[in-house]
Amino acid sequence: MTFTVGVIGGGQLARMMIPAAVNLGIDIRVLAENEGESADLAVSMLGRADSEADVLRFAQGVDVVTFDHEHVPQPILKALVGAGVRVHPGPDALLYAQDKLLMREKLSALGLPVPDWARVADESELAAFLAEHGGMGVLKTPRGGYDGKGVRVVRAASEAADWFAAGDPLLVEELVEFRRELAQLVARRPSGEIALWPVVETVQRDGVCAEVIAPAPNSAGRIADVAADIATTVAESLGVTGVLAVELFETTDDRLLINELAMRPHNTGHFSLDGSTTSQFEQHLRAVLDLPLGATGSREPWSVMVNILGGPPAELLAQQTAMAMESQPTVKFHNYGKAPRPGRKVGHVTAGGDDLDEVVYRARAAAAFFED
Amino acid sequence: MTFTVGVIGGGQLARMMIPAAVNLGIDIRVLAENEGESADLAVSMLGRADSEADVLRFAQGVDVVTFDHEHVPQPILKALVGAGVRVHPGPDALLYAQDKLLMREKLSALGLPVPDWARVADESELAAFLAEHGGMGVLKTPRGGYDGKGVRVVRAASEAADWFAAGDPLLVEELVEFRRELAQLVARRPSGEIALWPVVETVQRDGVCAEVIAPAPNSAGRIADVAADIATTVAESLGVTGVLAVELFETTDDRLLINELAMRPHNTGHFSLDGSTTSQFEQHLRAVLDLPLGATGSREPWSVMVNILGGPPAELLAQQTAMAMESQPTVKFHNYGKAPRPGRKVGHVTAGGDDLDEVVYRARAAAAFFED
Repeated sequence: MTFTVGVIGGGQLARMMIPAAVNLGIDIRVLAENEGESADLAVSMLGRADSEADVLRFAQGVDVVTFDHEHVPQPILKALVGAGVRVHPGPDALLYAQDKLLMREKLSALGLPVPDWARVADESELAAFLAEHGGMGVLKTPRGGYDGKGVRVVRAASEAADWFAAGDPLLVEELVEFRRELAQLVARRPSGEIALWPVVETVQRDGVCAEVIAPAPNSAGRIADVAADIATTVAESLGVTGVLAVELFETTDDRLLINELAMRPHNTGHFSLDGSTTSQFEQHLRAVLDLPLGATGSREPWSVMVNILGGPPAELLAQQTAMAMESQPTVKFHNYGKAPRPGRKVGHVTAGGDDLDEVVYRARAAAAFFED
Repeated sequence: MTFTVGVIGGGQLARMMIPAAVNLGIDIRVLAENEGESADLAVSMLGRADSEADVLRFAQGVDVVTFDHEHVPQPILKALVGAGVRVHPGPDALLYAQDKLLMREKLSALGLPVPDWARVADESELAAFLAEHGGMGVLKTPRGGYDGKGVRVVRAASEAADWFAAGDPLLVEELVEFRRELAQLVARRPSGEIALWPVVETVQRDGVCAEVIAPAPNSAGRIADVAADIATTVAESLGVTGVLAVELFETTDDRLLINELAMRPHNTGHFSLDGSTTSQFEQHLRAVLDLPLGATGSREPWSVMVNILGGPPAELLAQQTAMAMESQPTVKFHNYGKAPRPGRKVGHVTAGGDDLDEVVYRARAAAAFFED
């Protein structure tokens, strides 16, 4: 093989790097915690992402280490770099994806548009923030949250008592009045080259991405330009390498505010597997290897991705898959090989075409066969 | 996993099934002869395709057995079926892909258009055929030939002395005066459903596929209809399951004649990985699992695939890959992970777009970086 990439974490993001690696002749190796995880096919070692010994051993013989998730502790990331391993994204960038307080501070310092926010150490500080923001706020644990976990809308400081009991400061943000949520994906090579996909609209349900429309309707012009500017500034200022997803609010008063950052392929970019000339997974591998980036143009005017959450019971999956394929021959199916569990992301479907209403219909019709 | 497919043979065709299997949540297992073959990532067992014990052991626990090549001996195929294993394509169909004399007899009996041919047992029979066909003929060993091997243009019966010495009858065919070569890919499920891709033009050099243009220029209408009819008849009459490639001559007097059959994904269908809604590899997996077939429409008006033969020396591959990616950001690269060797198929590239001349240029420009 010409290139060897090590991926820490065995989830569906690592899994979806496998096809791109196979196409490009990349030897992909995955460090997974357990047998039978989503990226099982490419697992080269079982071990823990928070064990320095495991991670250092895994990294031996790979050209570059990258990630399925952002949970590798900073000391381990720095030990990797200290051992001469290429790590992308690097620890100094990942820091801002790992800690939402640091992220808010950094983005504010860069003058980038973010919701009003504050670091709050106790209920009285939180109460003061709420009083200044209509009595409501979005409270977040700085670390470890995802898919709606570690996030809570609060209307009284007392609602945060359990989280404050842990002793760490929290992040509170204004409850943004938004028209819709957008996401801007960008890829950046260590040598600086940047490539952007079109800004997309994301529909969240219960804090979890449910659907993505690419490109975001009525985004051509100002919205696309501003989203691209924001993502480019974040990628360059934070020194992000690989794929960066910038989740944005489009406010009711026509501003774009940065919601979250993810420094890896992201659910809002899954449409690109079927909808783009270069998918986010191929681009991530090219970027972390510092290879020239691929074209990010759309294969079809519209792509719509619908997540499959929960999934049917295992004994019905084969039958439901056959029915969905029969019903929607143009839809592309992605099954992450995970056991069904309520709310769990177990797959997604993507439809593409010229007529957005019809594309949405086909994607939803296909996904409906997999409802739990 | 919902479905488990076992593939006999570890070459690039098995390798290119891996991405489709990952997408669809199929557990793909490969029986390879040696370590380090092209489909290494999915190898579950090392063993020989001509060892009944190996093949039977490999087939345990899979839903269906299919193939990277057509070289599994009939007694072993029948033993698999006898053991209750689903085998697609089945032995009775594969027979005609394994033996060119049986293939010619069968296609002639079906009234399908084939070149003039004869079974010749010795030099005098060959001499008689040549005398009736302008003193020239294409001589073929009925078994084991591929990529120009086992094929020889002869102008005198004495040129076949070494092959006749083996004692087996040979196939001789007229030297067809053709304008170009075409290929019609079709997929068929055990339950009967059929899907066809557009007929493609294939450019051969030294008996090896060099380029494919999809669809074949100026094929709309009669040529496309006849090619589709021929491939459908072959698939149905021979009971082929999975992907079937029918290689065709377009003669200078406007007929289509069947050249060769392949009962598996085929080099002439590689364009579909990037150019079609459903690739031949995904469709093959769906077909052998008897799942509904996917849409075979084209993502772009033209797709051009160029094979990479030989490849650069291993120490230059990384650099040449980077240069090719830099030069052609829209081209899709496929590296089979095989060591370079003169004439060996080590990868391919595919370009797509609206303007055929420009698409051909981009594909050839990308491939040129990998010339040996």
